[in-house]
Amino acid sequence: MPHTFVAPKLTALSQMPLQDIFDSLRLELRRGSLILAVLAHLRREHYGYTLRKALLDHGLDIDEGTLYPLLRRLESQGLLLSEWREENNRNKRFYRLAPDGKRILKQLMDEWQRLNASLDRILPEA
Amino acid sequence: MPHTFVAPKLTALSQMPLQDIFDSLRLELRRGSLILAVLAHLRREHYGYTLRKALLDHGLDIDEGTLYPLLRRLESQGLLLSEWREENNRNKRFYRLAPDGKRILKQLMDEWQRLNASLDRILPEA
Repeated sequence: MPHTFVAPKLTALSQMPLQDIFDSLRLELRRGSLILAVLAHLRREHYGYTLRKALLDHGLDIDEGTLYPLLRRLESQGLLLSEWREENNRNKRFYRLAPDGKRILKQLMDEWQRLNASLDRILPEA
Repeated sequence: MPHTFVAPKLTALSQMPLQDIFDSLRLELRRGSLILAVLAHLRREHYGYTLRKALLDHGLDIDEGTLYPLLRRLESQGLLLSEWREENNRNKRFYRLAPDGKRILKQLMDEWQRLNASLDRILPEA
């Protein structure tokens, strides 16, 4: 049986450091979970700071530069509602789930359970 | 306390159908999990077809147009090794985890457990 090893590509030789590769894969792994966590938290109204703190209290560290654009995007998709309101003499933008966001959250939670069930079976094997 | 509702943006008015929004969020949620599942399966050698079938048997349906570019990308990042080999008179490209892939898989599995622990606490609340 002939064995033909594929020659390493230049991209592999000049590849990113392993830590950078891990960081980018970790980001991809976290991304979907963060969206799910943000939607779930916004079943109750939050403004950016308290939302970020609530996520952190649950072990999810998301920086402002990621969270705020995500909130604006989810609002532009019709999943969140926002409202500027004064609190302690400061204007704050409060976010909460829109009715469409509630429906999507439910569907994504179901999807998450399915993915989890699959990975729970795959990861320990072999 | 003054209430100023933010006017809906044009992007929100002309937004995608809800199903498309769900599909794109679902894709983001699945993406990281699929990478993790692919790396985990390749602790044993597979070629494309058997890998896809093994994932499907574990409830993860990934089409060829997504799986094959992902395999090539993970190989170019040094996480997979591949080898062309003849089997049943056909040349097939077999993939398996590279040593760096094993290290990354371990780290990503740890990250997955952490994300899961966070979401398990967040999702049922409120």
